[in-house]
Amino acid sequence: MKEADNLYKIRHSLAHIMAQAVLEHYPNAKMGFGPPVDNGFYYDFDFGDEKVSVEDFKKIEKSMYKIINQKQEFGIFYKNLDDSLTLLKEMDQPYKVEYAKELVETGQAENGELSFYQNGPFIDMCEGPHIHNTSEIPPKAWKLDRVSGSYWRGDEKRPMLTRIYGLAFESEEELKDYIKRRELAMQRDHRKLGQELEIFMIDEEVGAGLPLWLPNGAVIRAELEAWAKDVEFRAGYHHVSTPSLSKSALYYRSGHLPYYAESMFPPMVLDENTEYYLRPMNCPHHHKIYSFRPRSYRELPYRLAEYGDMFRYEKHGSLSGLLRVRAMCLNDAHIYCEYDQLKQEFAAVMDLYKFYYGYLRLGNFRVRLSLHDPKSDKYVDAEDEWQFSENIVREILKENNIDFVEEVGEAAFYGPKVDIQIKNLLGREETVSTCQLDFVMAKRFDLWYSAKDGTMKQPYILHRAPLSTHERFISFLIEFWGGAFPTWMSPNQVVLVPVNEGVIDYANELKEKMIALGIRADIDTSDDSFNKKIRKAVTKKNPNIWIIGDNEKADRSITWRRYAVQEQFTVSADTAIEKVLRLRRERIMDNFSDVEV
Amino acid sequence: MKEADNLYKIRHSLAHIMAQAVLEHYPNAKMGFGPPVDNGFYYDFDFGDEKVSVEDFKKIEKSMYKIINQKQEFGIFYKNLDDSLTLLKEMDQPYKVEYAKELVETGQAENGELSFYQNGPFIDMCEGPHIHNTSEIPPKAWKLDRVSGSYWRGDEKRPMLTRIYGLAFESEEELKDYIKRRELAMQRDHRKLGQELEIFMIDEEVGAGLPLWLPNGAVIRAELEAWAKDVEFRAGYHHVSTPSLSKSALYYRSGHLPYYAESMFPPMVLDENTEYYLRPMNCPHHHKIYSFRPRSYRELPYRLAEYGDMFRYEKHGSLSGLLRVRAMCLNDAHIYCEYDQLKQEFAAVMDLYKFYYGYLRLGNFRVRLSLHDPKSDKYVDAEDEWQFSENIVREILKENNIDFVEEVGEAAFYGPKVDIQIKNLLGREETVSTCQLDFVMAKRFDLWYSAKDGTMKQPYILHRAPLSTHERFISFLIEFWGGAFPTWMSPNQVVLVPVNEGVIDYANELKEKMIALGIRADIDTSDDSFNKKIRKAVTKKNPNIWIIGDNEKADRSITWRRYAVQEQFTVSADTAIEKVLRLRRERIMDNFSDVEV
Repeated sequence: MKEADNLYKIRHSLAHIMAQAVLEHYPNAKMGFGPPVDNGFYYDFDFGDEKVSVEDFKKIEKSMYKIINQKQEFGIFYKNLDDSLTLLKEMDQPYKVEYAKELVETGQAENGELSFYQNGPFIDMCEGPHIHNTSEIPPKAWKLDRVSGSYWRGDEKRPMLTRIYGLAFESEEELKDYIKRRELAMQRDHRKLGQELEIFMIDEEVGAGLPLWLPNGAVIRAELEAWAKDVEFRAGYHHVSTPSLSKSALYYRSGHLPYYAESMFPPMVLDENTEYYLRPMNCPHHHKIYSFRPRSYRELPYRLAEYGDMFRYEKHGSLSGLLRVRAMCLNDAHIYCEYDQLKQEFAAVMDLYKFYYGYLRLGNFRVRLSLHDPKSDKYVDAEDEWQFSENIVREILKENNIDFVEEVGEAAFYGPKVDIQIKNLLGREETVSTCQLDFVMAKRFDLWYSAKDGTMKQPYILHRAPLSTHERFISFLIEFWGGAFPTWMSPNQVVLVPVNEGVIDYANELKEKMIALGIRADIDTSDDSFNKKIRKAVTKKNPNIWIIGDNEKADRSITWRRYAVQEQFTVSADTAIEKVLRLRRERIMDNFSDVEV
Repeated sequence: MKEADNLYKIRHSLAHIMAQAVLEHYPNAKMGFGPPVDNGFYYDFDFGDEKVSVEDFKKIEKSMYKIINQKQEFGIFYKNLDDSLTLLKEMDQPYKVEYAKELVETGQAENGELSFYQNGPFIDMCEGPHIHNTSEIPPKAWKLDRVSGSYWRGDEKRPMLTRIYGLAFESEEELKDYIKRRELAMQRDHRKLGQELEIFMIDEEVGAGLPLWLPNGAVIRAELEAWAKDVEFRAGYHHVSTPSLSKSALYYRSGHLPYYAESMFPPMVLDENTEYYLRPMNCPHHHKIYSFRPRSYRELPYRLAEYGDMFRYEKHGSLSGLLRVRAMCLNDAHIYCEYDQLKQEFAAVMDLYKFYYGYLRLGNFRVRLSLHDPKSDKYVDAEDEWQFSENIVREILKENNIDFVEEVGEAAFYGPKVDIQIKNLLGREETVSTCQLDFVMAKRFDLWYSAKDGTMKQPYILHRAPLSTHERFISFLIEFWGGAFPTWMSPNQVVLVPVNEGVIDYANELKEKMIALGIRADIDTSDDSFNKKIRKAVTKKNPNIWIIGDNEKADRSITWRRYAVQEQFTVSADTAIEKVLRLRRERIMDNFSDVEV
């Protein structure tokens, strides 16, 4: 949101109008800050001993409508510090007095003057910009939203103020749409669904940012991993398994120490004086495997893959569910190749992410070419090689007709990268997949191969992670799919619901048969009513509910109700089991209603 | 080996006879210690400036035979310290002088007297016992073995002595058998094969005890793990995935801190003052998952399984290949059950280890019932519960007709356990599998379930790991099988060997077909001769060599040479591929020659 945008002005003006209305009802309220934010606006107030809550919104909104309908003009005037303080003291606004002094003392006020906006009788010290007239506020496109506590200046030693939030958009439709999306996002929040569907838990004694995957979550991880490994095997990757810690020597060699140290866990000292670190990345371990023995050009491209555990020190306050964690498992791989193979290998990785995203029907992403910033010192100092490798990646993207935007200062310290940025339901963007071109580490790790011409050469390295970390990727899958996974990934693939006691033996027989075939089948023999059993299975997002009644038992069939479709059909049990085996084997995306089973 | 054993006396006497022979050839040699050991004996000498090596064994052995044939009597006499020192100084044996003083000063000499053994002219200060006459040495049942350096008293600030080792047994056959077994053990040493077959590597910059699994090793791990998970799924286990570290709070609750602290990695301090530890065991994380929500008796037995990463601080000097490591991955599970279910669950675990050991044809093991030591303070103080639970485990073993020995002081700190002890090729025993009955942790972790009678009860917990850690178990598999894995576990399942250039297209077609089916197939298109290609494949322990010549190409067949059998047969390519799929699917143990494919 930019200041020049109309919506910015509307939201900013609504913050003033809300304060104006609040002061009508609470003349002793003291104003803090009141900026526009990315879905509306807020204003902080000190209400003294009075409590203001959502119950008071109606009367405040009513006053706001009255102000808007009065078509008040917004005007600006300037005052020097003395005059400003006189005015603000007259207005009895001590927080504004404090801030006015600070602005002038720290040289933030142009010519030592402060600006004030006025509409109707309401005056606020403010930099603007604002709309010209309250009549410009789009009707029914805003509403007051919620109340929270907030320390003055974010300082917990200063008074706790009451923050009133409002939503504001350019039209009633956009407001409604936002509220709907937010409702959906709340329902689908992976932290909420993760608890309800028993996917993961966070435990205070284990620690923040260290999720424990419950049985259901462990199934999802394992299925995703098995799929990735199948795909990678066919694409010529070799899987390895390397330890999640190392002596510091490894990270001094890679350059993670000291430059990346603040994102790493602190060291552990063993054997009297050797520092060991939990690894923040898997690459150095893979480079060691490359150098296990001399390599020949015949082996290249040499692709090493590992779902590897990594550890990052994220600040406690920024940790959130599975999205921001301290321990994670990355769909990692490193491709060591010759210069001539670079484009083809990079393009194959791009194809891989397209395949995964298409298969899982993930939309809402954009491709970012992340470049180094020549002015920053966090990048390897080799301008020629930066230009060279950034050009290669740019060419690859163009040759493959991939739309992308370029962003400076987002590269890895060892080379440019392509990031796949996904937007969540609320429109916040996160980097999910990545592919990096590394022209640095082969030198640092002294990696070589004997080329066809008999000389020794250093390989280029691609770092890639199309399925991101389990933690981040599954948090997105939960939210996009609302917790409803396709049969092949689903923790419980079939739930059998017997209609009466007399069919339990038959249902059990089917269940045992499926278990023996490796199908995750369960049976609901609780005392709940039939309807409640169905409701439970739907709440648990069970992809396949098999209803077993007397007819089904008689002709050895089942009545099938799919989560995604909710229309049912009857089919022989043998056929049904064959169908489930196929859903698994072929990894059918049957959580989408247009997919036949 | 006990002092009273005849073999002990023989070995001890051979040490004297060797010293006697050495002094004939090197009259200035100074003697250190010369004890019997578990495959023979050694003696340490200071040879001054002279070098003694295996080339000198012949003449020393010749002198030893001469002494033995002289049928010298062993006699004992005693001297006080003064007289002893006089004698030892006359003999010009300064190390013996030093040790004599120490023995008397530290009160280790009975009545202040030291004992001396004499045979022929040779005298040594020694506690015995010895044989009566050198003629008792079994002929051809001993030989000198090797030479190494050894500091006097193991102190690197004292002189480096030359240690001469001899082998000695009760018969020539036993000696030959031992040498053969040792030769085999050296050939099959998992550290040697691990390198040759590219299974794992240890890297100085990564750290000791932290093996990196190369692509071949990662396949073996993954196949073993997939098998275990299949077996566990059918046996009603739920798999979970939990982080490999935790706040210290978790380990204070479990009791690992402070009692187990010296086997743990040091803590990492995060968020200013919170200690985090790499986990030494997975149990506490699983207990947390149990307590995710209230549990009912309907859910019990509740079986949580995880191939979980754990970290133990082992001393640097004790680390060895995959056998003793600092980072390991355990075939772990915890079974939460009611009292009435205890015996059945424990017996099911015993059946599971029997199944695995039988399937893999691992012999050479014994079952140990590991009991607490009431005199030790390393066990939970609850004598009644110890008696109770030890009796239960003893009963289970008896009821299941399992032969076992009892050993005091080998229990876990929270309960008795059954350990499966495997002997390696040299007869050294290691604990591999374990099943433990835990009556402590449910209380410490406040774990409950609502019983059928409506009351709240605490579950019993079984801890079990029939397949041990990947590291230890695979080190045993490598050594037992000499690196030859069955097709289903083998890193390379089929290698195609084309006989000439003209058949490469056909061989490649078969390879691509197999890769698409997930079979780990490779083709040898190197410039090596046919015989060398076969030799390479055999050296790499490739289970299936498919030879492709003109005839094979013409009738779309392959000629199959199995590693275990080395007889070849020709079969259609389609049939051959079907057979490999079956070897994989049914996990056939075709590394044994009696198994048909």
